[in-house]
Amino acid sequence: MSELDRDTHLTSVGPGRFTVEITDRWSIGTAPNGGYLAVITTKSILASLPHPHPFSVTTHYLSTAQPGPAEVIAEVVREGRGHSTGQARLLQGGKERLRTIAVLGDLSTLGGGPTQVTLEPPVLPDPSQCERGRAGPTAALAIADRLDVAMRPGDVSWMPGPDGAPRTHSERAVLEGWVGLRDGAPPDPLSLVFFADALPPPVLNFSSVRTPWVPTLELTVHVRAIPAPGMLRARFTTRALIDGYLEEDGELWDARGKLVALSRQLARVQRIG
Amino acid sequence: MSELDRDTHLTSVGPGRFTVEITDRWSIGTAPNGGYLAVITTKSILASLPHPHPFSVTTHYLSTAQPGPAEVIAEVVREGRGHSTGQARLLQGGKERLRTIAVLGDLSTLGGGPTQVTLEPPVLPDPSQCERGRAGPTAALAIADRLDVAMRPGDVSWMPGPDGAPRTHSERAVLEGWVGLRDGAPPDPLSLVFFADALPPPVLNFSSVRTPWVPTLELTVHVRAIPAPGMLRARFTTRALIDGYLEEDGELWDARGKLVALSRQLARVQRIG
Repeated sequence: MSELDRDTHLTSVGPGRFTVEITDRWSIGTAPNGGYLAVITTKSILASLPHPHPFSVTTHYLSTAQPGPAEVIAEVVREGRGHSTGQARLLQGGKERLRTIAVLGDLSTLGGGPTQVTLEPPVLPDPSQCERGRAGPTAALAIADRLDVAMRPGDVSWMPGPDGAPRTHSERAVLEGWVGLRDGAPPDPLSLVFFADALPPPVLNFSSVRTPWVPTLELTVHVRAIPAPGMLRARFTTRALIDGYLEEDGELWDARGKLVALSRQLARVQRIG
Repeated sequence: MSELDRDTHLTSVGPGRFTVEITDRWSIGTAPNGGYLAVITTKSILASLPHPHPFSVTTHYLSTAQPGPAEVIAEVVREGRGHSTGQARLLQGGKERLRTIAVLGDLSTLGGGPTQVTLEPPVLPDPSQCERGRAGPTAALAIADRLDVAMRPGDVSWMPGPDGAPRTHSERAVLEGWVGLRDGAPPDPLSLVFFADALPPPVLNFSSVRTPWVPTLELTVHVRAIPAPGMLRARFTTRALIDGYLEEDGELWDARGKLVALSRQLARVQRIG
């Protein structure tokens, strides 16, 4: 069982009702990572429906979750032959932290339908040539101990270089790199929901963004194929930062070079002062 | 009042409860357009919360809606200072047709935050040089009488040319064009939810796609600015068709050349036979 599986373990306490212990092991500062939380709600939906894989998962972040116990309430929206749909709410002390709606299916039964992919996987330097240090710019990053990440050095221009000297902001909101779980567990379809929100925001490469806090309002992940074992290649980009709001688009490619997930989130650069 | 406003008119029948008459005036074949339906559910959320504009709207399509009466049940998820979140379900005969979750805000109060946009608006021929005919490939398209659309001729390669002769599939899943409402009503933030799903799918430019039916499983629209009056410029692309499933990404630009919405949907090429 992977660390991610274990730290999102649900205890069933009734029909569609679960408890979970949100650990502090996937936090950025004091806040549990949004992708980690979305794995919890998505897992409760998977537990409530017959289909084994998430196809599209949308999560709205409503209030800041805290490490500690939480309640998850899952609802069956629709059960169908090829797809089914469910929704889940995660609450702490009666306060809703996040809400996820997901359509599920069975990726293992696909095949034979028309296929034409014009996106190309990122061409990356060997992980040994990449930025392996902290996954983000802040001091206390428990998530960095869970993630095996190797980012293209030119794509983390807000971070100090290996010698500790500041780099020059690239002004390119692109972040490409290798990503996996530190415990070596292979990626599975559910973990892609986590990886879609696990890397630091590429918008930090803009010098106009003066805070590392870019909270997510809404995150949607489309899981498109079962990933092969091995580290994923990731590409995250922001192409429209408008009045502090931004979309962040992600692509996740598996070790065979196959596209396995697309993601998009609406986020907002935290205001200062 | 625009046709779109009138044909999505909600009658309040209780707290968070509305009735609506789904018209057959926005249909593709016998099925009401998904963007039109999402305007109805989004409107019920707007009616239930203090913020005036949709920021992110996700709709799951659960069963095929029919023209005729429907019930809409809206729920307040969270009321906040800067944003609020709501959800709505549209039912016919007790059967849920679609479900929308949306985070709202006030686009008119934005300004001054960091802004950096690397996307470029489509460079389009004059509408008189574009394909103005039917908005799609099927016979009965009521929606074509509501939409003012002018598509780049090379981007609708599955449609017969002006002389009725078949074109050659371009094998490029891109569709760019001008779009507005036929009644001349200017676009507003809510109407962008409609425009994000109003054009035919660019994936029809692939010769491997042998059916015009590409039903949407999930559609997410990010509204990023209040559109200026005048026709919008649209760009829709599909970059990953995998085993019949596809994402369709949209950009909507206003008459000033400002990006006003981004959209993405997960859809599926209908199986034949």
